[in-house]
Amino acid sequence: MSVLFPKIPALLHGGDYNPDQWLDRPDILEEDIKMMKKAGVNTATVGVFSWSALEPQEGNFQFGWLHDIMDKLYENGIYTVLATPTGARPAWMDEKYPSVLRVEKDGRRNHHSGRHNHCMSSLEYRSLVEKMDTKLAQEFGNHPGLILWHISNEFGGECYCENCKKRFQEYLREKYHNNIEELNKQWWTSFWSRRFDSFEQIEPPYDNGEHSILGLNLDWKRFNSWNMKDYLAFERRILKKYTPQVPATANFMKLFEQLDYVDLAKEIDIISWDGYPSWNNDYETPADTAAELSFDHTVMRSLKKDKPFMLMESTPSLVNWHSFNKLKRPGILRASSIQTIGCGSDTVQYFQWRKGRGAAEQFHGAVVDHLGRDDTRVFKEVSEVGEILKKLAPVTGSKVTSKAAVLFDWSNRWAIKDMQGMARDTKNYEKEVRKFYNIHLKKGINADIVFPLEDLSSYSLVVLPMYYAVSKEAGEWLKEYVKNGGTVVATYLTAYVNENTLAYLGGFPGAGLGEVFGLYAEELDTLYPTDSNSVLMKDGNKALVKDYCELIKLTGAEVLGTYESDFYAGMPAVTVHSYGKGKAYYIGTRMEETDLIKFFTPIWSECGIKEKELPEGVEYLTRTAEDGSTFDFYVNYNATPATVQLAKNGTNLLNGEAVSGKVEILPFNAVVVK
Amino acid sequence: MSVLFPKIPALLHGGDYNPDQWLDRPDILEEDIKMMKKAGVNTATVGVFSWSALEPQEGNFQFGWLHDIMDKLYENGIYTVLATPTGARPAWMDEKYPSVLRVEKDGRRNHHSGRHNHCMSSLEYRSLVEKMDTKLAQEFGNHPGLILWHISNEFGGECYCENCKKRFQEYLREKYHNNIEELNKQWWTSFWSRRFDSFEQIEPPYDNGEHSILGLNLDWKRFNSWNMKDYLAFERRILKKYTPQVPATANFMKLFEQLDYVDLAKEIDIISWDGYPSWNNDYETPADTAAELSFDHTVMRSLKKDKPFMLMESTPSLVNWHSFNKLKRPGILRASSIQTIGCGSDTVQYFQWRKGRGAAEQFHGAVVDHLGRDDTRVFKEVSEVGEILKKLAPVTGSKVTSKAAVLFDWSNRWAIKDMQGMARDTKNYEKEVRKFYNIHLKKGINADIVFPLEDLSSYSLVVLPMYYAVSKEAGEWLKEYVKNGGTVVATYLTAYVNENTLAYLGGFPGAGLGEVFGLYAEELDTLYPTDSNSVLMKDGNKALVKDYCELIKLTGAEVLGTYESDFYAGMPAVTVHSYGKGKAYYIGTRMEETDLIKFFTPIWSECGIKEKELPEGVEYLTRTAEDGSTFDFYVNYNATPATVQLAKNGTNLLNGEAVSGKVEILPFNAVVVK
Amino acid sequence: MSVLFPKIPALLHGGDYNPDQWLDRPDILEEDIKMMKKAGVNTATVGVFSWSALEPQEGNFQFGWLHDIMDKLYENGIYTVLATPTGARPAWMDEKYPSVLRVEKDGRRNHHSGRHNHCMSSLEYRSLVEKMDTKLAQEFGNHPGLILWHISNEFGGECYCENCKKRFQEYLREKYHNNIEELNKQWWTSFWSRRFDSFEQIEPPYDNGEHSILGLNLDWKRFNSWNMKDYLAFERRILKKYTPQVPATANFMKLFEQLDYVDLAKEIDIISWDGYPSWNNDYETPADTAAELSFDHTVMRSLKKDKPFMLMESTPSLVNWHSFNKLKRPGILRASSIQTIGCGSDTVQYFQWRKGRGAAEQFHGAVVDHLGRDDTRVFKEVSEVGEILKKLAPVTGSKVTSKAAVLFDWSNRWAIKDMQGMARDTKNYEKEVRKFYNIHLKKGINADIVFPLEDLSSYSLVVLPMYYAVSKEAGEWLKEYVKNGGTVVATYLTAYVNENTLAYLGGFPGAGLGEVFGLYAEELDTLYPTDSNSVLMKDGNKALVKDYCELIKLTGAEVLGTYESDFYAGMPAVTVHSYGKGKAYYIGTRMEETDLIKFFTPIWSECGIKEKELPEGVEYLTRTAEDGSTFDFYVNYNATPATVQLAKNGTNLLNGEAVSGKVEILPFNAVVVK
Repeated sequence: MSVLFPKIPALLHGGDYNPDQWLDRPDILEEDIKMMKKAGVNTATVGVFSWSALEPQEGNFQFGWLHDIMDKLYENGIYTVLATPTGARPAWMDEKYPSVLRVEKDGRRNHHSGRHNHCMSSLEYRSLVEKMDTKLAQEFGNHPGLILWHISNEFGGECYCENCKKRFQEYLREKYHNNIEELNKQWWTSFWSRRFDSFEQIEPPYDNGEHSILGLNLDWKRFNSWNMKDYLAFERRILKKYTPQVPATANFMKLFEQLDYVDLAKEIDIISWDGYPSWNNDYETPADTAAELSFDHTVMRSLKKDKPFMLMESTPSLVNWHSFNKLKRPGILRASSIQTIGCGSDTVQYFQWRKGRGAAEQFHGAVVDHLGRDDTRVFKEVSEVGEILKKLAPVTGSKVTSKAAVLFDWSNRWAIKDMQGMARDTKNYEKEVRKFYNIHLKKGINADIVFPLEDLSSYSLVVLPMYYAVSKEAGEWLKEYVKNGGTVVATYLTAYVNENTLAYLGGFPGAGLGEVFGLYAEELDTLYPTDSNSVLMKDGNKALVKDYCELIKLTGAEVLGTYESDFYAGMPAVTVHSYGKGKAYYIGTRMEETDLIKFFTPIWSECGIKEKELPEGVEYLTRTAEDGSTFDFYVNYNATPATVQLAKNGTNLLNGEAVSGKVEILPFNAVVVK
Repeated sequence: MSVLFPKIPALLHGGDYNPDQWLDRPDILEEDIKMMKKAGVNTATVGVFSWSALEPQEGNFQFGWLHDIMDKLYENGIYTVLATPTGARPAWMDEKYPSVLRVEKDGRRNHHSGRHNHCMSSLEYRSLVEKMDTKLAQEFGNHPGLILWHISNEFGGECYCENCKKRFQEYLREKYHNNIEELNKQWWTSFWSRRFDSFEQIEPPYDNGEHSILGLNLDWKRFNSWNMKDYLAFERRILKKYTPQVPATANFMKLFEQLDYVDLAKEIDIISWDGYPSWNNDYETPADTAAELSFDHTVMRSLKKDKPFMLMESTPSLVNWHSFNKLKRPGILRASSIQTIGCGSDTVQYFQWRKGRGAAEQFHGAVVDHLGRDDTRVFKEVSEVGEILKKLAPVTGSKVTSKAAVLFDWSNRWAIKDMQGMARDTKNYEKEVRKFYNIHLKKGINADIVFPLEDLSSYSLVVLPMYYAVSKEAGEWLKEYVKNGGTVVATYLTAYVNENTLAYLGGFPGAGLGEVFGLYAEELDTLYPTDSNSVLMKDGNKALVKDYCELIKLTGAEVLGTYESDFYAGMPAVTVHSYGKGKAYYIGTRMEETDLIKFFTPIWSECGIKEKELPEGVEYLTRTAEDGSTFDFYVNYNATPATVQLAKNGTNLLNGEAVSGKVEILPFNAVVVK
Repeated sequence: MSVLFPKIPALLHGGDYNPDQWLDRPDILEEDIKMMKKAGVNTATVGVFSWSALEPQEGNFQFGWLHDIMDKLYENGIYTVLATPTGARPAWMDEKYPSVLRVEKDGRRNHHSGRHNHCMSSLEYRSLVEKMDTKLAQEFGNHPGLILWHISNEFGGECYCENCKKRFQEYLREKYHNNIEELNKQWWTSFWSRRFDSFEQIEPPYDNGEHSILGLNLDWKRFNSWNMKDYLAFERRILKKYTPQVPATANFMKLFEQLDYVDLAKEIDIISWDGYPSWNNDYETPADTAAELSFDHTVMRSLKKDKPFMLMESTPSLVNWHSFNKLKRPGILRASSIQTIGCGSDTVQYFQWRKGRGAAEQFHGAVVDHLGRDDTRVFKEVSEVGEILKKLAPVTGSKVTSKAAVLFDWSNRWAIKDMQGMARDTKNYEKEVRKFYNIHLKKGINADIVFPLEDLSSYSLVVLPMYYAVSKEAGEWLKEYVKNGGTVVATYLTAYVNENTLAYLGGFPGAGLGEVFGLYAEELDTLYPTDSNSVLMKDGNKALVKDYCELIKLTGAEVLGTYESDFYAGMPAVTVHSYGKGKAYYIGTRMEETDLIKFFTPIWSECGIKEKELPEGVEYLTRTAEDGSTFDFYVNYNATPATVQLAKNGTNLLNGEAVSGKVEILPFNAVVVK
């Protein structure tokens, strides 16, 4: 068992709470406590963006109100997640220390504004943060209600200031062993006369600067992520100095483009994230939206596979920044909260407890509306979730285990996005990774997301969608995995370039993987959206394929499917190759979900992975307790009841009744079998 | 009677005239006079953008050509509308005084260029303007041909220079009583740590500056409009000093986004505007276009309800800056000119008399083309309008009166546009206001546009579409109106926030209007474009509704319609509530025109407002003379004849014939009954 | 005969070769030579973008590697096209001389980056170039393998620095005879007070500067093109000083918008260009794509009508910068290479010989892939082209002659694009020119592209599509042509403005052309895309017309077609007028290809131009040897065989067999009859 907060042997329910917006309304603050208890809330996240309340003028620290709030929360059984207020700066800071402000891609320094507008390299900023975080840790580190540090908020953005430029140069100097020729080689600067004589000549990719060196672009993205991590580690060190016993988190945002969360995760203790699906939209079913949410949960969970994660923010109703901010339909909150727990979260938290009266997020959904009543639809649905979480308490601390894994890699994503070739708008790396995860979800198979160089020994199957930028080290890592009996399924675009986007010579896949797959891809055909081809599989199945088709030449692999049309009709499209004790499948083109499921079915069987027939729109998720017993979650995302064949009989935690065999699940509801 | 120009007991016909472009062609200037007389022109607008002709170098004033022109025009019975040339600056000014140039949102100062590119706060600019306007007033103030000052041209734009920043801070200091905490409260700066310590910390919303404070954004828009008004008042004061007897105008542009014309109107004597509908487009009928024009005329007329307005600019043929610059079809000019008079204008003026040979507007339609002939289609159509205006002379000075009114408010518009919630692209405030005006137009009902705090005593019905940002004062004003027997019809989104976008607590509508309508809106559902719902009305009618649906709880109101589907099926959608001696209707969702007409029919009847059946595509407009007698305009926008039942019998001013009962109107023609 | 390179009595086959990217891989350099010979390559373009390899630090010149390469190539029968490396600058230069960098439209100086990022006015840059080019010419000018200088690479872009501003002012001063009032008149600066007092007041059209003066905008485009030409001439002078015997080229890009290639062509000896059609796309057939390629070849060829041109770059497979980078299908390379020769090129050259490993173009098609093998599909297709070119050697030096011509003019294009009127998105000047070329191509008629003031005496027919901006001189030129017996076909929009966009007074066409065509256009109607009209031709044909319709009044012309609908039904749409010994046709509206072919059929006959029936998808192209004998190219762009009736019997150069009468051509193949 990996219970996140030993103080609380239960799932957390709560959310962002901004009492500093209501300090002149003690009646409202009192009402908050009453309503929290009514809604079954046991945690509140306080202090996010509170810098100007905590230090209204430089050096004038005001912690009294926060003491009062945390005390009152604690007295009422509500624990505090305490945020460092560093997500935004007070006006006095930007006025006095303008160098803390970010410089944009166009070289202009921002004005005082918004959130996340401080340079992560700024020593002045870090020094002010150090003072604040030190004080906070000293003041509240021993508060009995404190369970978790919440560092800053939703990290993101970039800075192009002179400091950042210099740090970037130092970052490169270290990476390339102070050897400019090593950099020139990896960046292939002999192209277009881009050769550098010194690290000092290198600049960030300003909007009116260098963009043609893909290695530079990629290293800049890496640097920016690294610099953010460096800052995160800096804040955490301060907190740990005074409160080594209190864990720290930073709230992530699923596949956020700019930050390599695999790297950042090293500097936090617990993974938490903010999830805002577009429920009830006009382009997919709620079940489809739920599947995306399961994927996102899985990515986040996979960042620390040894413990549960937290859903730090979600909306009890609408959001306010989508293109269409539709109300969450009744039942969605219930179903998605149970799903969240099923995916490995030990919390359901909201942004926000109470709607503020003004500014950018005044109409973002909240548990308590401007209306202020506790008989609203939303308040009642939140209270129901509170009840459910209490019933699910036994799940607390249990884990999710998987025999299948799908690889995702931020560097690979960046490299593909910037790759000059293929088609501008159909590369869709993230979508493809999601697709390979989804075929597992649809068949009731828990799949992990894995990241390069991770220990793969617990997996019998690893899927490698569009794994384009592969270091030699990563090539070796996969080779070993297959050699030792693992099964991999790779796709078109595998190992074209190394980790710095230098193309492999002598045939793709490079990085030593050619011998693993027993083939090379001579050409990659990019199709227009109206084009398609089909693949005739050995088993007689015909799979429609789109967007990309590799023209494969064999060097040992066995053909499993061939193209049916165009000038490469009859050429291999799908292959398999035995290597060591393992097997390496290769899908040289883009297939659709239903065909992939057909393709994977025998592979799952070979790999000892059990699939499960599920009604359309029902998710089956499993958590495993320390003693090996499991919690089976069946979540019905249909507007009609659904009947499932239980994987095992037991007690439905949601109502305490014994269940067995076939069970009917109500719309947007669930059965959780212990 | 409110005759605008006592010197001229007739409707004005003329337009922008730029003789300064032809000073080297006296033959053309002579030809102009002859052709103007042929076209029935009795006014010319001279001097717009003439600064470099009037003062080619600093201090070198050249008024001789203008004297000649005004003399010659006057001798030929043509009166002059004289513009101050301040719409654009000569090159010498920008060269010598670069600070007169505007600074854009990105903080960069513009180069010498274009029109309206001067900072309204610039004291240097004002000083140069003062010299120019003083000279002009002294030179021409007593010219017998002068009837009107035309101040600058089509005000618009913004400036972000240091001067403007300081003026903005002073503006805020005054508004918030030199109390920064009052501002912090109204702007809800406790959100995201946005609190200000001093007015000096506040900056305009630069593109790389603060945007998350909606109150700041809104006050910036107000400031910009106020600053423009302040400048307008400055120019007017100079002119009034020397020519108190000459009225002044500034040409407006219907619902121009940046300027609160209600406020600017206080600083001019006569409303004038420039109208450029996209006639004969591919997305609506000419009658639809005409309806929009009637709305625009009505907005402009409503700025000064006690007198006629002027159509200062319109094109005799094509414009040159639409996406498609199609020729105005034969008859459109005639029909729309008569409609213009019917809507309350006492002028039909064109941009432009004669096409210039070069630069940005060389192909904008004009009475006289580069061709230079007076036998062109366009010249003949303009001459026909000249004839018609002579026949309509009795209308001069009569007014338009209404018992129904629709509220429009610039601040509300700005607040809705910046509102973070709902959907990005379907808020459509202006379109909704237009819709509520249009249902009146379609039923032959004159409706005014009203603005907050205006005297409502002459109206029996006031419609309040999407009146989102309502001050307490405005709430009181509407309450009083209903209490005293008025009828209001409000919609979803009523009174969510105050005038600074601070949300009302305790239920929407706020501002004290909850008791007037007897309900509160618990939630606002935003639909995707493919979504819809329907409302079953008490009278059995079913109305399709789209985009927005409020979930209403009653506190006294009576239900007139309920939703038919989705999770709020059966909940109230349309209500009515008696309050004091009046009635308050509430439509909690977005209905279409035909359903609204059905809904309003009994309300009009209750309010003593007479509707009139009209054939599709025919407008019925009425002007009332001082003696109470009316001029009834029937304008047929169909390509086929239309037959109307006259509201009263009388003489058709267009041909002098007696008309009664049913009358046939030719295509794109009209009948005007006195 | 105009053989381009007397040393090589054959067609050239080769392409861009970047050995400087592989200096650390002598094995690869050796392999290159072997593979070139295998592929039938006899030329390599070396040194493009090699500055940092040739001068890695300032003054440190490294020519050894280039000597080695050129020697080895020459020893193996491969000639060198040697590029000056001035397409991009090494990092040391931008670091030391920042003023060489361009300033963008927004006034910001670029950072060190990319290619073509140097100010063409920079004296510092020119001085560094002079050193480099002098050295290059001295080192390699007498190398026996050198056949051509390739100056810089794909000129383009603009600079808005202070130097450029001053040069622009000087350019204007010269053009307008140091008379600011002449400029004011031509630019019509009396509009919007835009009058200038001095040339020093004039600025380039910065993004936040002046845009309303169309004359300024146009002169800026002319200046930029002139400045680029001035730079090109500067580089060429250096090379000519040392190697007067070696011709020079600069690779053009078909209708590249920014540069008036007619002007630039004066400063080079041989025309060369880079062609990258989007073969096998989803919006047209390969035959359509081929027709566009023929047009582009023709434009390029027409820049120097007395000799063959060169296809300097093309891809052997895919490109990497289109929206969809699809593989070139088998056969396309063969067909398009033969077509290229048929259109008058004496070379087929590729970008690139070997794919680089990194940076922006690593996945651009190449003869040799990262794979490095010579048994790839692409390598084999390239080798086939090598064989074909050897067989076509007799064609070398022959020319293309035409009796028909279509006018294209860069100034006219710029003027139309900036014209304020018509519709924003349907002006389509280039497309219309292409259309008039295409109707000739479809009927097997060689047509030249002609440019203003060119000698027209060899043409019996000249087509003038949308010739909007016509100087008086050009008007006179066309008048003379018709007077002397020529036939012209002009369209709507003819001669509305002079060369500075000043509108002609007294009727369009101006420039004295009214009497040639015997008509004037009173109005120009712009249609919406869903609108259309039709023209009833005298011969009974009905032609659908779209987008633009002129309302024409006759002053002598005979009507050939009248509009059928709208308010101008019955008015003339198409006319003809005899003038002197010639004829002037006028098409006042936009017709489609099939109707234009019907219209031109009798005109071609009158003009003694023979048309030829061709199967759909087959191009017929002719080159003429010095002795008057011809080479007839028939290229089949269908995926099925096509049968053509040969224009003359003879020997098929591609296989040496005699052919006569009807011949079948295989898909994507050709017959070339000598």
